[in-house]
Amino acid sequence: MDFNLTEDQQAFADVASQFARQALAPFAAEWDKNHIFPVDTLRQAGELGFCGLYTPQADGGLGLSRLDSSIIFEQLAMGCTATTAMLTIHNMATWMLASYGRESVKNAWLPDLVSGNKLASYCLTEPGAGSDAASLMTRAEKQGETYTLTGAKVFISGAGSTDVLIVMARTTNEGAKGISAFVVPANAPGITYGKPEEKMGWNAQPTRMISFDNVVVPADHLLGEEGQGFTFAMKGLDGGRINIATCSIGTAQQALNTARNYMHERQQFGKPLAAFQALQFKLADMTTELVAARQLVRLASFKLDQNDPQATAYCAMAKRLATDVGFMVCNEALQIHGGYGYIKEYPLERHVRDVRVHQILEGTNEIMRLIISRSALQEGSELV
Amino acid sequence: MDFNLTEDQQAFADVASQFARQALAPFAAEWDKNHIFPVDTLRQAGELGFCGLYTPQADGGLGLSRLDSSIIFEQLAMGCTATTAMLTIHNMATWMLASYGRESVKNAWLPDLVSGNKLASYCLTEPGAGSDAASLMTRAEKQGETYTLTGAKVFISGAGSTDVLIVMARTTNEGAKGISAFVVPANAPGITYGKPEEKMGWNAQPTRMISFDNVVVPADHLLGEEGQGFTFAMKGLDGGRINIATCSIGTAQQALNTARNYMHERQQFGKPLAAFQALQFKLADMTTELVAARQLVRLASFKLDQNDPQATAYCAMAKRLATDVGFMVCNEALQIHGGYGYIKEYPLERHVRDVRVHQILEGTNEIMRLIISRSALQEGSELV
Amino acid sequence: MDFNLTEDQQAFADVASQFARQALAPFAAEWDKNHIFPVDTLRQAGELGFCGLYTPQADGGLGLSRLDSSIIFEQLAMGCTATTAMLTIHNMATWMLASYGRESVKNAWLPDLVSGNKLASYCLTEPGAGSDAASLMTRAEKQGETYTLTGAKVFISGAGSTDVLIVMARTTNEGAKGISAFVVPANAPGITYGKPEEKMGWNAQPTRMISFDNVVVPADHLLGEEGQGFTFAMKGLDGGRINIATCSIGTAQQALNTARNYMHERQQFGKPLAAFQALQFKLADMTTELVAARQLVRLASFKLDQNDPQATAYCAMAKRLATDVGFMVCNEALQIHGGYGYIKEYPLERHVRDVRVHQILEGTNEIMRLIISRSALQEGSELV
Amino acid sequence: MDFNLTEDQQAFADVASQFARQALAPFAAEWDKNHIFPVDTLRQAGELGFCGLYTPQADGGLGLSRLDSSIIFEQLAMGCTATTAMLTIHNMATWMLASYGRESVKNAWLPDLVSGNKLASYCLTEPGAGSDAASLMTRAEKQGETYTLTGAKVFISGAGSTDVLIVMARTTNEGAKGISAFVVPANAPGITYGKPEEKMGWNAQPTRMISFDNVVVPADHLLGEEGQGFTFAMKGLDGGRINIATCSIGTAQQALNTARNYMHERQQFGKPLAAFQALQFKLADMTTELVAARQLVRLASFKLDQNDPQATAYCAMAKRLATDVGFMVCNEALQIHGGYGYIKEYPLERHVRDVRVHQILEGTNEIMRLIISRSALQEGSELV
Repeated sequence: MDFNLTEDQQAFADVASQFARQALAPFAAEWDKNHIFPVDTLRQAGELGFCGLYTPQADGGLGLSRLDSSIIFEQLAMGCTATTAMLTIHNMATWMLASYGRESVKNAWLPDLVSGNKLASYCLTEPGAGSDAASLMTRAEKQGETYTLTGAKVFISGAGSTDVLIVMARTTNEGAKGISAFVVPANAPGITYGKPEEKMGWNAQPTRMISFDNVVVPADHLLGEEGQGFTFAMKGLDGGRINIATCSIGTAQQALNTARNYMHERQQFGKPLAAFQALQFKLADMTTELVAARQLVRLASFKLDQNDPQATAYCAMAKRLATDVGFMVCNEALQIHGGYGYIKEYPLERHVRDVRVHQILEGTNEIMRLIISRSALQEGSELV
Repeated sequence: MDFNLTEDQQAFADVASQFARQALAPFAAEWDKNHIFPVDTLRQAGELGFCGLYTPQADGGLGLSRLDSSIIFEQLAMGCTATTAMLTIHNMATWMLASYGRESVKNAWLPDLVSGNKLASYCLTEPGAGSDAASLMTRAEKQGETYTLTGAKVFISGAGSTDVLIVMARTTNEGAKGISAFVVPANAPGITYGKPEEKMGWNAQPTRMISFDNVVVPADHLLGEEGQGFTFAMKGLDGGRINIATCSIGTAQQALNTARNYMHERQQFGKPLAAFQALQFKLADMTTELVAARQLVRLASFKLDQNDPQATAYCAMAKRLATDVGFMVCNEALQIHGGYGYIKEYPLERHVRDVRVHQILEGTNEIMRLIISRSALQEGSELV
Repeated sequence: MDFNLTEDQQAFADVASQFARQALAPFAAEWDKNHIFPVDTLRQAGELGFCGLYTPQADGGLGLSRLDSSIIFEQLAMGCTATTAMLTIHNMATWMLASYGRESVKNAWLPDLVSGNKLASYCLTEPGAGSDAASLMTRAEKQGETYTLTGAKVFISGAGSTDVLIVMARTTNEGAKGISAFVVPANAPGITYGKPEEKMGWNAQPTRMISFDNVVVPADHLLGEEGQGFTFAMKGLDGGRINIATCSIGTAQQALNTARNYMHERQQFGKPLAAFQALQFKLADMTTELVAARQLVRLASFKLDQNDPQATAYCAMAKRLATDVGFMVCNEALQIHGGYGYIKEYPLERHVRDVRVHQILEGTNEIMRLIISRSALQEGSELV
Repeated sequence: MDFNLTEDQQAFADVASQFARQALAPFAAEWDKNHIFPVDTLRQAGELGFCGLYTPQADGGLGLSRLDSSIIFEQLAMGCTATTAMLTIHNMATWMLASYGRESVKNAWLPDLVSGNKLASYCLTEPGAGSDAASLMTRAEKQGETYTLTGAKVFISGAGSTDVLIVMARTTNEGAKGISAFVVPANAPGITYGKPEEKMGWNAQPTRMISFDNVVVPADHLLGEEGQGFTFAMKGLDGGRINIATCSIGTAQQALNTARNYMHERQQFGKPLAAFQALQFKLADMTTELVAARQLVRLASFKLDQNDPQATAYCAMAKRLATDVGFMVCNEALQIHGGYGYIKEYPLERHVRDVRVHQILEGTNEIMRLIISRSALQEGSELV
């Protein structure tokens, strides 16, 4: 058992931290305010390897573990939550293509994806299929050497500004087993994009509905085999949940540091806020919960790296706790700032708005509890 | 002991509810999005008497109790939180003028204020004096028959769009005892308004800094006597806390109703959300906490109406609990909506953003705890 | 709307308070330690009318409302939780007999029950039918002019030391509709009592299993008509829940007062605990939650007195909140006492042990949430 | 970074688990009920090395790390909380003697202490010096080759049944710097023991006051040098906090397992409790919080093993979170058992009573927050 970062991990973290401080943090408020999707910045992140962190080296990625990746994403999220979250989605989509794609398709797309020259979106959720992903209705019909996709996806991060879509669609009616995964060029004929959703936060990335109206893709754009899509999606979600949990941890750490500094600066009743015991205790609890949540995220990453049979439950626990703690910490940091926490001149209210969605996406925290309880109720299973 | 609304209270509530549904709710999202201050709507509210609810009848108001007023404001807040909050501030300022103003000044302003033809802002908070209001530094110097005010106020609701300001300023250096209250025309020479603050919510009302640079007002614009300002401010805050607590209750009730309806409509895994026990329990807890918080708000109003010596502590308890419960309920209602809760097409994220500031203003909830503990620690005092 | 106690209510509260301080509080620790059921003390309570508080005056009771009764029970619970709880159960059983019993049976028992000369137990719960009361299996078979009861009841308060039992038994197999209620002399042939359960708390009252082996009662010992038992039980539970909620409120108030006093006495780091802000805030929150919970209990009592169609939901809300808050307050009061809170020389650990069961009995707080959610989900229903 | 147990750690855990299941669990209820201090069982634990887990091998101990020890104590606590807690105190006292004692004294005591033939108590707390340990008043006056101790200690675990005492006493008046640590034979003339405290739990170990009336010990019984006692005490507390946190984790895991099994067995409304979603979610949250708290305990142990400059803050975080989560988990496990959770036939209420004190001793959780906030407020400090 060893809780120290390796030298490599520390080195990666340092690079990511510098990037966050120089290329993300100074612009995050502006991106939020004006709903700017910083494509160039994502490309810069790609130059540092951050667009293919756990894509295998053979496919041009860094081939890092999920734990390594979490350590890096955490630092990035300290600079900009929404941008880092988009980056994690891109990483997941890229990893999925690398893992399950045919060589022809991988060759066509992967070099640009791992370099950040092109970006990927991930298309699972549908209007009627949120938590119940297996009930999705987008269809993919095989006709000779092509598949024709028809249906609609909602809440797609990056939609309209990305280059390739990983799309879950139904090839048969057999519930989860009838779902297959496809690589679809984002500009394929028949694809139309809805208006950008106006959201509470995550404004540095566009979110749109996508309609597929007889969109034709070559048969080799199928990932793996027909019927494997749901399995891929679930594997993707394990990692996706660690990623989003990590984005909460990083943002919360940033909010905590900001609040700590503010407590030294702000004077009330003739002394700094740091001298008030009730605020000291609040800071202590924020710190404690955050440190524990971070450990759980790292434990889950480790389990996923080890192909632990309970990895899915650990990822669900990490996602549930880290996103709840992340929200609580940001929200308390806002409170410590009083009225200043509520205005956009300070970053606190943005942190709160950004992390709020983490409790919902990649499976709501209610779905997480379902997943966790299934393992927890299994006799012989040991979640320790 | 009687927990039923009187017939009059019910009648007022019904009028307010209709106004909320017709004149507020349909426009609230638009006002939020485009930062519109609905002056005409406030004037309509004035026609119904809502601009002088607890201003005495002799002064043109409805002369209602704080409890009556709370029942009305709650209904209004179900339609638009930010507009109702502005209305409560206007009511407080109007009441203060009616209670402590000289006849000449009352005659000049009150008719227009109670009718809603003109609006009032309340100016207490300063950049360096948030929770510690008694340390305010704006000065008012008496020179013959005038006072000259110099200083700055921040986070002033309605600032730049209202007609008259109630301003707390220092006439001597004796701490709280050196503070006096003034009526200041909003367009008096020497007043300049800052840019509208960009806020997390409460966008239907402008919030600005106000600078006073040798602003001259006639001596009769002093409320009461010199040195009474802090006392007036604290009395005003008792009522203001009930008001803001009420705005949280009304908004939370609206969010709860919305979530309840959504639970019947939204299907997942082949059945409505209403069929899932974990969500049922969540709704049960939201309901229970909200009903209890409402009772506490009404109890505090009643104590204030009765001039109970512990009224300040009751108002603080009501404000603390109702604004915390209000935020929790809105936030859980958002969560029940999943992804739809996070987008502006639905009202949930607005409710969350709007009520968030209630935990901060009119004294942060940390200040409330200070006030409550002071009473709770007093032997012989009975907070029951 | 009026939140003040009437003069009568205040007078009753004063008598109860005096009784609690003189006849209960000084002995409560001893009763707990040595598992003493203070029958004589209950008889004294009877002399003050406390054994038939809401039994109609025509039947020898005081004919008070549930709200009046709650105000009285709260004061008593400040003296001894377990004894007061037993008293409330006795009151419920006595009220049930008065409300639904035949004259012959009422004449035989009521005078002694309202005077406290005899005591009653209430027999609903069975080993396999806890939360799911309607599944009870104790049978009552009619044979001519008698019923013969066979089955087993568990967790019966007072069992073995009381004189009469109100027993729910099945006369047909039609689920809840097949349940009838009976008055059974506690010493009827065929009744055997189990060993006293060793419990975490509530040691001032014995709790035993009761076995019914062909216990014969005259047919007039049926309450109301066959099949009405479950309805009576549910009506009884509405009041029972208010009672147990009240016992939590009273105990918590006592614990809070004790903690408040301790904070003034105990010195650490050169000043009294009362001077530490974190403890001040804790006390403030305990106070606030308790005041709100009390109001909810009183609101529910009022609704029950008014036969409000939603009374059951209000009683469930009151029970859920007041018992949770009651436990929290006692537990925090223990914590404020540090090591002294953990030893029996101080009353805090007893308060915690005693109120803990309130979250479980008369329907667990999980069952309360089921009941509340049923009302909360009903459109048109208004829980406000 | 590695979250797996080493083979050695797993082997130790297995031995401890077997011991817990065979030698502790079957007797824990009886020890609790009859207040039995199982000295023979502690001796058996000594035979397995559990009485000197982190005492250096050179001194006859196993020389394990704090992390190793935590893994072992956790398994033991699953069998009996109070006995394991006593064992951890003995380990701490033994380690302190081994670390700071003079050879003569070590030779006299250590062999019997590491073997479990003799037991040690740790005497820090005084009636007036609970959280504020540095204000202790027991005096040790040097006279030639002896020290004479006079004063009183309270809440001493094992007192009256142990063989040696580690006593903190004041050699000068310089606050914390005037405190020195002594080894005192438990039967030294002048020592008298108070009556066993009657406690809420921890009944398998006696707790008594100890009075020192001119108790004379040879000068070589001083640990380290004069004035170092407080430093030793604080170092001891770091480890002691990990130990007590560990006892909470182990007990909570046992309670969780018990609740999980009960949910499969207990039927209500025609299906097992495990089929009710609200209970599933409760179990999920209990599991998640417990796993996170365990990780934090292990992280803190690791930091202590590495002499991390922030180790004290990590130990405080671990103690605060693990004891709070431990109590919550045990308390919810009780609730899942309904009425059966409240009676002593089931272990749940004992678990609740036993872990409750962990939130108080070795520094209350309020003191933990003070310690944590001190580090959290330090700029440059990084609690991650």
